Amino acid sequence: MVYVTRREVFSASHRLYNDNLTAEENVTLYDKCSNPYGHGHNFILEVVVSGEIDRKSGYVIDLKILKKIIHENIIKKVDHRNLNHEVDFLTGIIPTAENICVAIWNELKNKIPMGKLYSVKICETENNYVEYKGE
Amino acid sequence: MVYVTRREVFSASHRLYNDNLTAEENVTLYDKCSNPYGHGHNFILEVVVSGEIDRKSGYVIDLKILKKIIHENIIKKVDHRNLNHEVDFLTGIIPTAENICVAIWNELKNKIPMGKLYSVKICETENNYVEYKGE
Amino acid sequence: MVYVTRREVFSASHRLYNDNLTAEENVTLYDKCSNPYGHGHNFILEVVVSGEIDRKSGYVIDLKILKKIIHENIIKKVDHRNLNHEVDFLTGIIPTAENICVAIWNELKNKIPMGKLYSVKICETENNYVEYKGE
Amino acid sequence: MVYVTRREVFSASHRLYNDNLTAEENVTLYDKCSNPYGHGHNFILEVVVSGEIDRKSGYVIDLKILKKIIHENIIKKVDHRNLNHEVDFLTGIIPTAENICVAIWNELKNKIPMGKLYSVKICETENNYVEYKGE
Amino acid sequence: MVYVTRREVFSASHRLYNDNLTAEENVTLYDKCSNPYGHGHNFILEVVVSGEIDRKSGYVIDLKILKKIIHENIIKKVDHRNLNHEVDFLTGIIPTAENICVAIWNELKNKIPMGKLYSVKICETENNYVEYKGE
Amino acid sequence: MVYVTRREVFSASHRLYNDNLTAEENVTLYDKCSNPYGHGHNFILEVVVSGEIDRKSGYVIDLKILKKIIHENIIKKVDHRNLNHEVDFLTGIIPTAENICVAIWNELKNKIPMGKLYSVKICETENNYVEYKGE
Repeated sequence: MVYVTRREVFSASHRLYNDNLTAEENVTLYDKCSNPYGHGHNFILEVVVSGEIDRKSGYVIDLKILKKIIHENIIKKVDHRNLNHEVDFLTGIIPTAENICVAIWNELKNKIPMGKLYSVKICETENNYVEYKGE
Repeated sequence: MVYVTRREVFSASHRLYNDNLTAEENVTLYDKCSNPYGHGHNFILEVVVSGEIDRKSGYVIDLKILKKIIHENIIKKVDHRNLNHEVDFLTGIIPTAENICVAIWNELKNKIPMGKLYSVKICETENNYVEYKGE
Repeated sequence: MVYVTRREVFSASHRLYNDNLTAEENVTLYDKCSNPYGHGHNFILEVVVSGEIDRKSGYVIDLKILKKIIHENIIKKVDHRNLNHEVDFLTGIIPTAENICVAIWNELKNKIPMGKLYSVKICETENNYVEYKGE
Repeated sequence: MVYVTRREVFSASHRLYNDNLTAEENVTLYDKCSNPYGHGHNFILEVVVSGEIDRKSGYVIDLKILKKIIHENIIKKVDHRNLNHEVDFLTGIIPTAENICVAIWNELKNKIPMGKLYSVKICETENNYVEYKGE
Repeated sequence: MVYVTRREVFSASHRLYNDNLTAEENVTLYDKCSNPYGHGHNFILEVVVSGEIDRKSGYVIDLKILKKIIHENIIKKVDHRNLNHEVDFLTGIIPTAENICVAIWNELKNKIPMGKLYSVKICETENNYVEYKGE
Repeated sequence: MVYVTRREVFSASHRLYNDNLTAEENVTLYDKCSNPYGHGHNFILEVVVSGEIDRKSGYVIDLKILKKIIHENIIKKVDHRNLNHEVDFLTGIIPTAENICVAIWNELKNKIPMGKLYSVKICETENNYVEYKGE
């Protein structure tokens, strides 16, 4: 069992706001992250696939293929986009790093042709990261 | 003459759009950066001050003081903000990295109490940076 | 189950020396790390909390809260300090990265209000790290 | 149980080519990685050892010793070398990151004097990593 | 005058060997860098263009355009290549980082449509860099 | 004219304290940096040498030689040391990053056999750097 990781970066804007709460409650909960005009990040995405090494190729999964899958399903939808308004797989979801991470897992989990999805990690800033393993 | 640098990070959203051009011209010029909902980055800001070393302190400028100046004049205005709509010193300016960099220079140039402002650098992504030296 | 990480940095000095050994044995064991005047590092601390995502907030734990807990319990005690002489939770402990890591775990494990402490990591240099998971 | 990591870097060249396939099949499989003249990377190697903290030293394993073991068994054989032609422990192996990682694990697993080998990670580029834990 | 930088990475192999010297002299001069099978690096390339900010776009040069120029003239020729045998603009040149840097400068200097080429930097490893400004 | 850089890291402790001031004045000036027990950093040192490329070698200066010069004159004196008490070339100097940087310049300026010393940079933390060019 070997774990292979592909790292990608996307630049997006978002706003943390729960429609079921009042404006004041949102400020209490999210502080400056609830600013009406939103803010943004260079989100770093790390996708890990685990599996056995294929004898013929020496790969668990060709990382060019994994890169393509991530681009087609995730990056082209989120890069230079607003995560509250423009991403099909985030509709109705408060775009915290945690929720983005789980949503990306759900988008990718059935699309890995060799090995299987092991984890998805999102680094929102240099100091804040989240990771999900489907548990 | 010694050069001292303070590095800060802020997370903001922006949209590149020139109001004097048509929507089509904006797309031609800015591509996905002109997306109406905007996008965002973790902008890295590096402020360099040059000067002689003070005998008493061994500092060109105390970096705690430089940090405070940058926070009061720049970071608290741009962090978790939208650079098109919410920043006084960016009003009427297309917020490209180049224009942000020059605008920050102009905000800081007369506020450095020891030494003088030497350069302002903005890293918009891992691969794209701009620097201005007041020339 | 999602894993969220907060990264902090502190600058401290320390000396590796076991009082139960002779000076010569300490040199044999710790080499230049046992130098009487001590040395120092920018220690990178990564604290990971695991838990379920809260429906209301979309967070496992608000990282602003986790940051505050780490600052009050750890950073304000160790930053710009000597780890042999000035830190209550390191009294009587040889401040190797391993021992610092376990001591920080013990300080934090009962202070996480949402989710639970999953791991503590200390990077002493670019090339040397340790991690503890309470096992 | 504490996990300690030593990070090393080596610069090497390699070519991905399976002798059991035709030249065309190799190009289909490996694309530019099968270029006859080869290419190269600064490979980052992270070796993790797990174990209990020794009372006397406060170490799981002295990282100076782990560094020496990695240098003698791995780095001096691979640094500034061609991984297809010059490395005894890679003879007959297609030098994908996956295969290099497993081969390094096999070289090191019986040579760790304290604690035991927990994982070996290879970062081939900023965006592509592999990890093996002996599973 | 603003300085804009585009950063790219390419993975290549090379061997340092001066055909006018004996094999022994090459070993004395280049040590392990003269190993007959070659070695490789992830070379980081930073290209800086200086110029005034265009009023209409807010750019010195659109970094998407600069990226394309660097890819067409440099990256597609050097990435996953051997720098001794496969790169037209390095023919007959000992591929030290210094010589690569000057050769890339010469390839790019007349191809920058807005502003002008200010510097080319090559990072061969984490610890070794070279920069050329056409002086 | 090409600029070549060698990067090194050393781990040291220091205390900022001016003996000509009172204890209170030192606290006012240096705050936690004047803590009597000292603190420490992983100092990153970047030494830049400028010169023409030697025809025979393709080098400005062999970076293996520059590394050796930096190690013999600087690193072996400062690594795992206290900068207030143990370093000959820092005797009587308040070890601010600025003063360390100038002192290292003075140690190295006459010891570069090819090209000449262009700059010395010290990164004390991720956010604070100083640079000196002998001006």
